[in-house]
Amino acid sequence: MSNIRINGDRLWDSLMEMAKIGATDKGGVCRLALTDLDRQGRDLFVQWAKDAGCTITVDKMGNIFARREGRNPSLPPVMTGSHLDSQPTGGRFDGVYGVLAGLEVLRTLNDLNYETEAPVEVAVWTNEEGSRFAPAMVASGVFAGVFDLDYGLSRADQDGRTMGQELARIGYAGDQPMGKPVGAYFEAHIEQGPILEAEDKTIGIVTHAQGQRWFEVTLTGQEAHAGPTPMPIRRDALLGAARMVQAVNRIGLDNAPVACATVGLMQVYPNSRNVIPGRVFFTVDLRHPDDAVLAKMADEFHAALNEILAEGKLTAEVEQIFYYAPVPFDEDCVGAVRAATAAAGFSNRDIVSGAGHDACYLAKVAPTGMIFIPCIDGISHNEVEDAKPEWVSAGCEVLLGAMLERANAGGATVGAGSKADAA
Amino acid sequence: MSNIRINGDRLWDSLMEMAKIGATDKGGVCRLALTDLDRQGRDLFVQWAKDAGCTITVDKMGNIFARREGRNPSLPPVMTGSHLDSQPTGGRFDGVYGVLAGLEVLRTLNDLNYETEAPVEVAVWTNEEGSRFAPAMVASGVFAGVFDLDYGLSRADQDGRTMGQELARIGYAGDQPMGKPVGAYFEAHIEQGPILEAEDKTIGIVTHAQGQRWFEVTLTGQEAHAGPTPMPIRRDALLGAARMVQAVNRIGLDNAPVACATVGLMQVYPNSRNVIPGRVFFTVDLRHPDDAVLAKMADEFHAALNEILAEGKLTAEVEQIFYYAPVPFDEDCVGAVRAATAAAGFSNRDIVSGAGHDACYLAKVAPTGMIFIPCIDGISHNEVEDAKPEWVSAGCEVLLGAMLERANAGGATVGAGSKADAA
Ligand SMILES: NC(=O)NCCC(=O)O
Ligand SMILES: NC(=O)NCCC(=O)O
Repeated sequence: MSNIRINGDRLWDSLMEMAKIGATDKGGVCRLALTDLDRQGRDLFVQWAKDAGCTITVDKMGNIFARREGRNPSLPPVMTGSHLDSQPTGGRFDGVYGVLAGLEVLRTLNDLNYETEAPVEVAVWTNEEGSRFAPAMVASGVFAGVFDLDYGLSRADQDGRTMGQELARIGYAGDQPMGKPVGAYFEAHIEQGPILEAEDKTIGIVTHAQGQRWFEVTLTGQEAHAGPTPMPIRRDALLGAARMVQAVNRIGLDNAPVACATVGLMQVYPNSRNVIPGRVFFTVDLRHPDDAVLAKMADEFHAALNEILAEGKLTAEVEQIFYYAPVPFDEDCVGAVRAATAAAGFSNRDIVSGAGHDACYLAKVAPTGMIFIPCIDGISHNEVEDAKPEWVSAGCEVLLGAMLERANAGGATVGAGSKADAA
Repeated sequence: MSNIRINGDRLWDSLMEMAKIGATDKGGVCRLALTDLDRQGRDLFVQWAKDAGCTITVDKMGNIFARREGRNPSLPPVMTGSHLDSQPTGGRFDGVYGVLAGLEVLRTLNDLNYETEAPVEVAVWTNEEGSRFAPAMVASGVFAGVFDLDYGLSRADQDGRTMGQELARIGYAGDQPMGKPVGAYFEAHIEQGPILEAEDKTIGIVTHAQGQRWFEVTLTGQEAHAGPTPMPIRRDALLGAARMVQAVNRIGLDNAPVACATVGLMQVYPNSRNVIPGRVFFTVDLRHPDDAVLAKMADEFHAALNEILAEGKLTAEVEQIFYYAPVPFDEDCVGAVRAATAAAGFSNRDIVSGAGHDACYLAKVAPTGMIFIPCIDGISHNEVEDAKPEWVSAGCEVLLGAMLERANAGGATVGAGSKADAA
């Protein structure tokens, strides 16, 4: 097992440098997928990766791969990565941490002149957040064959601009075909929840990710004047949507302790103070680590909606736009993370990911594991998202250890000019 | 009493011509206050009014007055009018009917060479709808001294553009000071509710308008990730807002049969599918014909909000941005409407206006009355808003009759060249 130290200051500085791109007043980041700011973030990463001696390829979904060659170039790469896009009110760590921890792994290997058996790659996955373009993880999904390329390129934002158009616009519509052999995939990420910090653990050894189902609902009633229209004859789409928000919340509570159920997005038409809303679009996000319970939650959601529709005032269009079953990560990869954590002596616990990650789709095509570090107050998808430098370093060291274990199946060497201790 | 006939075809044609400005696919109109389309509508009205021999003045709030001189120019004018702005998904009659019915009155008087004792004016009031700029009826409110001019000019739309800026931009920032003596004010309008049509009455003799209270509420919780954030620790602003939508609806129902309570506008932040909403802005519109009940409804609204806040998860900013007490219209003006309706033999009933109208503010500074005609299915603030040509003509004839009664306190003459029957 490796106990090579990474350069925590360098990693932190890179995170803070990247956080300037799309920085918000409240200390967060707004770097929505395939905007000009996303392009700037990508350009900076590519520059850093080239400076680290990597070769860069970009696939048709705009996923970027920075490759550090191994002794045996014909071996499939051991890959790490995450995403550079953020939520509209996102933080400085969600996604970008996994990318720059990967870069720090490469930089550390360079410092050591460390030659791995297999090549090592850092991936930047396009539009992981699913905020500007739904669903989440769409480009790693195409990479893993979960979605086809046309589907991925045709995802559109609220103004109708597609991922394909926006990739071309920002110069990241690459030429590499989708998918390739991956020897193992590891992703380091902030937990985005409160467990590790509450239990004072530095590393979360991610054994599973919970499943998700996302729905889009349009409720249609009838616009009418808020003054002369008697209450009993109203067909108020917002009233129906409000009842659904409560029903969704109830579904989350009823399937406690681990279920999550959220309405995050709602658009009201015509959205005028003195008009009874005639149409409301909203989204539903259901999550559970047990696929059967997740299905039951979806049934409960449909039942709640049908109860409202049965009153005969509103009609609905409903579509499930995203579903993946809970993901068990690869035993060997989880083992590699566990071993690297133990070797470094970090406090830890096993944990289930509440969020979706590109690793969830990579797990379909490669042995995959994840490493969590805590975040302050468990807060993510918020501009105040924060993490301590020692957590950031620790997660990167575990990532390095786990990657080396997998990249060196055939043995590894530390070349001349090593600047750090090697196992 | 007059039983002069107006030219129903001409009025209808003018309505349809004006409806082309901002016409929507669904047969409605989107002509938001102080947009370029509003300017086009104003320009067309001004042209028509000039063609009818009127002199035009515009006040500092952009209210337009088209004047047909009376025998005694020193008498305060008998005024009619309404508004040309619409809801985002508005119809072809709301407001514009009152303006063009007024124009048809002038055209009819011209046809007859009819000289009124007092001058007659048709007013176009700026931003009656309160949709682009809240509150409603802001410019007639400034005219009537309910709001001061600075307040009126500083009302801003959602992009921060003020009425003052937009009036200047479209060339309707007039030079006339606010307010002037008005001998009597009449406003013809579609009912915007279902009563007249349901009871098969052609004319509603409006005795009162219900009072209104509008609130703006911002609920603040905490943005967090929809996946790893346990249900019990969430501070979901949309959940709070959804409960308020239901509470507001309940207040409307509980104060039945005449109370109305509506949440028409809601904005969710950051409005991303996998982010628990941290902030929601919404509006509340409460109405009742009894001021004491209206106050009680406001108390109920505050109580419902306080119940949610008491749970300690959300904070709120609340502001009442609009209030007027129920309006009793002037006995003599209501009498003039009643007499004109009887003289023409139209089926009718007394009615309370559920909507606010510029007449509600004019009533503070002039004897005021209103005339309602039915609209199909009682639907307004909707693109399908519709009315029958015979209703449209009938309301205009009643308007003419009522205006003449008041304009001729000192006697009236039909000049040479009369083209129609005069009483
Ligand atoms: N990690 C993360 O925030 N992913 C976004 C997709 C999700 O909502 O789970
Ligand atoms: N007549 C009309 O639609 N007025 C708008 C103001 C209100 O909401 O009452």
